Amino acid sequence: MISVGIIGGSGYTGKKLLQFCNAHPFVDRIKIYANSTAGEKISSIFPDMVNAIEDDVIQSVSNLSLDNDLYFTALPHGEALYYVPLLISHGKKVIDLGGDYRLDSAEDYVAWYKLKHTSPGLLKSKLYGLADNCNANYDDYNLIANPGCYPTATLLSLLPFTSNFNNEIVSVSTVAYSGTSGAGKSPKAELLMSEMDGNVRAYNVNNHRHQPEILQQLQKNGFNSSFAFTTHLLPISVGIYTTTVIHLKNKIDVELINQVYNTEYSSSSFVRLRNEPPNLNWVVGTNFCDINISVKDKVVVITSAIDNLIKGAAGQAIQNMNKFYNWDEKLGLINSGVQYAQVY
Amino acid sequence: MISVGIIGGSGYTGKKLLQFCNAHPFVDRIKIYANSTAGEKISSIFPDMVNAIEDDVIQSVSNLSLDNDLYFTALPHGEALYYVPLLISHGKKVIDLGGDYRLDSAEDYVAWYKLKHTSPGLLKSKLYGLADNCNANYDDYNLIANPGCYPTATLLSLLPFTSNFNNEIVSVSTVAYSGTSGAGKSPKAELLMSEMDGNVRAYNVNNHRHQPEILQQLQKNGFNSSFAFTTHLLPISVGIYTTTVIHLKNKIDVELINQVYNTEYSSSSFVRLRNEPPNLNWVVGTNFCDINISVKDKVVVITSAIDNLIKGAAGQAIQNMNKFYNWDEKLGLINSGVQYAQVY
Amino acid sequence: MISVGIIGGSGYTGKKLLQFCNAHPFVDRIKIYANSTAGEKISSIFPDMVNAIEDDVIQSVSNLSLDNDLYFTALPHGEALYYVPLLISHGKKVIDLGGDYRLDSAEDYVAWYKLKHTSPGLLKSKLYGLADNCNANYDDYNLIANPGCYPTATLLSLLPFTSNFNNEIVSVSTVAYSGTSGAGKSPKAELLMSEMDGNVRAYNVNNHRHQPEILQQLQKNGFNSSFAFTTHLLPISVGIYTTTVIHLKNKIDVELINQVYNTEYSSSSFVRLRNEPPNLNWVVGTNFCDINISVKDKVVVITSAIDNLIKGAAGQAIQNMNKFYNWDEKLGLINSGVQYAQVY
Amino acid sequence: MISVGIIGGSGYTGKKLLQFCNAHPFVDRIKIYANSTAGEKISSIFPDMVNAIEDDVIQSVSNLSLDNDLYFTALPHGEALYYVPLLISHGKKVIDLGGDYRLDSAEDYVAWYKLKHTSPGLLKSKLYGLADNCNANYDDYNLIANPGCYPTATLLSLLPFTSNFNNEIVSVSTVAYSGTSGAGKSPKAELLMSEMDGNVRAYNVNNHRHQPEILQQLQKNGFNSSFAFTTHLLPISVGIYTTTVIHLKNKIDVELINQVYNTEYSSSSFVRLRNEPPNLNWVVGTNFCDINISVKDKVVVITSAIDNLIKGAAGQAIQNMNKFYNWDEKLGLINSGVQYAQVY
Repeated sequence: MISVGIIGGSGYTGKKLLQFCNAHPFVDRIKIYANSTAGEKISSIFPDMVNAIEDDVIQSVSNLSLDNDLYFTALPHGEALYYVPLLISHGKKVIDLGGDYRLDSAEDYVAWYKLKHTSPGLLKSKLYGLADNCNANYDDYNLIANPGCYPTATLLSLLPFTSNFNNEIVSVSTVAYSGTSGAGKSPKAELLMSEMDGNVRAYNVNNHRHQPEILQQLQKNGFNSSFAFTTHLLPISVGIYTTTVIHLKNKIDVELINQVYNTEYSSSSFVRLRNEPPNLNWVVGTNFCDINISVKDKVVVITSAIDNLIKGAAGQAIQNMNKFYNWDEKLGLINSGVQYAQVY
Repeated sequence: MISVGIIGGSGYTGKKLLQFCNAHPFVDRIKIYANSTAGEKISSIFPDMVNAIEDDVIQSVSNLSLDNDLYFTALPHGEALYYVPLLISHGKKVIDLGGDYRLDSAEDYVAWYKLKHTSPGLLKSKLYGLADNCNANYDDYNLIANPGCYPTATLLSLLPFTSNFNNEIVSVSTVAYSGTSGAGKSPKAELLMSEMDGNVRAYNVNNHRHQPEILQQLQKNGFNSSFAFTTHLLPISVGIYTTTVIHLKNKIDVELINQVYNTEYSSSSFVRLRNEPPNLNWVVGTNFCDINISVKDKVVVITSAIDNLIKGAAGQAIQNMNKFYNWDEKLGLINSGVQYAQVY
Repeated sequence: MISVGIIGGSGYTGKKLLQFCNAHPFVDRIKIYANSTAGEKISSIFPDMVNAIEDDVIQSVSNLSLDNDLYFTALPHGEALYYVPLLISHGKKVIDLGGDYRLDSAEDYVAWYKLKHTSPGLLKSKLYGLADNCNANYDDYNLIANPGCYPTATLLSLLPFTSNFNNEIVSVSTVAYSGTSGAGKSPKAELLMSEMDGNVRAYNVNNHRHQPEILQQLQKNGFNSSFAFTTHLLPISVGIYTTTVIHLKNKIDVELINQVYNTEYSSSSFVRLRNEPPNLNWVVGTNFCDINISVKDKVVVITSAIDNLIKGAAGQAIQNMNKFYNWDEKLGLINSGVQYAQVY
Repeated sequence: MISVGIIGGSGYTGKKLLQFCNAHPFVDRIKIYANSTAGEKISSIFPDMVNAIEDDVIQSVSNLSLDNDLYFTALPHGEALYYVPLLISHGKKVIDLGGDYRLDSAEDYVAWYKLKHTSPGLLKSKLYGLADNCNANYDDYNLIANPGCYPTATLLSLLPFTSNFNNEIVSVSTVAYSGTSGAGKSPKAELLMSEMDGNVRAYNVNNHRHQPEILQQLQKNGFNSSFAFTTHLLPISVGIYTTTVIHLKNKIDVELINQVYNTEYSSSSFVRLRNEPPNLNWVVGTNFCDINISVKDKVVVITSAIDNLIKGAAGQAIQNMNKFYNWDEKLGLINSGVQYAQVY
């Protein structure tokens, strides 16, 4: 049994973390830390969680205690820099769900996040925890950078291809659509129901922070072609759908491609290969990533779908916690074929 | 031809007013006044309106000019009190789309709006402009209080009944659902797509400002039974649906009821009596109010549907303008069977 | 451990039953029976359920086997009449989720369902299983009629009031809104996304089959006032929101009303009394019913919210199964504060 | 003044055609023809259109009269083959909104539509009427093939680029999302609100009939690179959003690209170039196509948005009618800055 601290527990991701931890058989104590909501009860912020956990008063992060075994940080970028080095220096395990430790290079960090990185050593020593496509020994790490939501959906569906057929690739274009919950709970006029009802828009075109994160992981696996990444908002709250179009130099036998993906994922707990493009609602409320591959002539189209708050954030973080402690990676996420995803 | 000033032109209602005025055959000049958005262009606030009107720079309301014939005020409650008396004193016609002049009594105003009314004389001399159910001579008025969105849908569907069968009524309960645009464009967390997607909630239960407004009009027409009014938010942007349940002392012949409604509305331009409950999307984007009446034993159920921003605000205001100037009330609202509702 | 048969396993309710049974600690075998989908796999009908259960081939109901301990019937009205008497005669426990056994009288059944009832004795000997408001001894019954979705939300929120303050009531009006999943999976043009997007409509006004079901239960508890019930479709898939307006003869002290509800529900597993009107999304994906009571003068407004497929169907059926076997009623529905609601 | 026949007037596109024709200043008589709905009134199929047009009884297409000047055919593919040759042979003008005459080659038609084409001569003599990007002399044609919805959004945004920078292109990938109304009004389970609420899915991947239509037009303008086209359904009714990613051989100066688009569209009535990615709701209910171009290094991302039923069907057809008769192309589509788009 371990005790867990959740720093930034009053956002959408923090709520999901809390629910998963609360249901996890090996987590016996949870402390929630936040800034502006310190002193409030979780159930006053999320009324659906009334009576869900024993002590639901939010602690002030300014009095961050060091008595937990593992800490999740779910904070706006820049803020984890204040807590993660401290926690690591005290021998704690940390899983950071923000963007502060995902890039490997301090130069890339300042270029994309417009901030100087204050613990660049941790950028090198962290594990980029793409849980379903990661053969690293978690024992070697104290800090896991939990991947971004878009990178999770994109990399899980694309990495097997680029790693195996790199020399055949002409170009890769990922077009991704996300529900609005990815933008968080801070009120902004352009995210109102009145504005988003029936609406769609591209945003951060050619300029999304998840692009260098994806490219970094692709390139570490040998990719060296042209990559484009374009993000859009859907008129719904939850879910990410990615469509990746690959133009090839020559035709590749479909069976060969399928074999690569089957090898990678046929025994996977959470990646499901599909014979048809996934429906987003097959995965919403779950930790699954559903993937379909379509090949015609020299064009490959890969579609993938995830729940951005679960597989793209809190669910994958729990999966990383399980791997950190060498527990079954499904623990707290699936039980007797039931996902612990929708909780109260 | 008249010139028009729109005070509060940068909200949802102001935008609709601008679109209708821009298309109106007898409006040849439009000035837009606002506070925080003064100096900006309408097309920068509403990009769908690029090139829609000739001069779209918003004037500061602190320099309100008196060179327009008619003024629309579309402001948060309390703010019209600053401009309306001034305009009236200069002989201007005014149509106020806010709540400041709808109630007849200064005591009611302070009770419901928590503000002292500074021009109580105008409360008495104004016309409550429920355009489709109003036999007043508009020539006798300078100030029209444009009804609230909920009162419009409720009163149009209920007034013929209460006015004709008052003695037979045991109780009246109106349950109303509205899209989120009624709450305006100011960002609030509880109105985010992330919160409202798939959601519904009652609000201001037993405490909505539109309740005394409805009751005042019912009572002026003889109603003296118990009335309840409950409002809810729909997970969409536009539209109001009201369901009014009337319990009777004795059965009333259905034909008698239908006759009353037919007499009231059979030649109406904008009220359409229906043989089945209306669909909300029959009226969204139009100035129509669709109404259905169902009678069984001693229960009458009346459903009605409107576009809250058009029939419940800007469309009815244009209709009131037409009646103010003794023009055809459909002018600028319907042309050859086409509603000028959805504009760019 | 028991074995369970689900008759009508390929609809929305059947799917939820399957998911709950699959996760239930005391259910060790599940058989699914259906008509037109016999021979297919559940995972081909609901692709999100791939690998979720061991043997997911649907059996033909024409070969209904009698080797299960408990049967759920989730069928269009009229069809349960073919199976329930047979199963009961063989000593099986049955929970019927359809409308065939909810009314107590064969006359009412033919009046509302336009069918002669072929097992009227079972109408008398069944238990109407409103699980959260039912003190019956389940040992005395073999057949449970699982309440309809609207009646569940309405009765849980209204019964304590009518049972305790019947003599003070002038009239009761329930206005209910439901997501489209209540209408099932059969394709109808008026239920298409293209028709329902942004839409709302009342339906079956003064003529919904759930009205006599509600009234029967109210009257069994002493209610004898006028009752109206009006249903609407929401532009979403899941959830029911009810608003019940009660006009009183005299004021009733709020504390007295609260005391009645607290007595009824303060230790309830699944009914949560709220200080503000519930949000529908607090309960979607769960077996909870959230209720708020607002009193002003002689008007009481009660709002309630449920998931129509869970608390209004499959979740309540599982709860009834738990009570049938004298298990903890939360079993399979909540675990460590986690609802087993959203499953894959 | 002309008289117009609409064949297939009871679908979503037919309805829009009817509304536009009804409001058009130069159309004085409209006849509606259909098959299964013959004898019904338009207002019984679309209750929002009650009283909208004078004679709204649908004629049987089996008694197709030849007394109209212009015919619109809005039919499932294959069906226009029965009427178009007949009408053309009688000297009528025809605008076909279906897919039967869009491809130039009978071989392509049979390959993609699985039907032998029975009037291949018309494939050669028709005009492909991409109204906003078409310099043809309409006097030379009797038959206009109105472009598909996806091709309209894709070609308007892409043609200027491929026509001017063909030699610099490595690959082009268009990812398009559409509301469900594009799939028509026939009830299908997978298009129900219950299935599409909160859902997204790719469909017809590498196999959509609009792909050869787009490619044909690109190639006629010199394009000879690799092109991929992927379509998705949005959880809304109306609108198309396309994202086209172009990988280049070398960087191209942004100003050069902007100049090409400005030259093409700066005086366009209906194409609006944007400095930021369009919002879908800027164009829904209008005949506009909004386009944004983003360039970074050797990647160009072009986003475009249209209303699939207006610019992607009926609106463009009216525009084509205007050009057919040498009228102002905005006639009936914009009046004093008001779009005649949302009609009742």
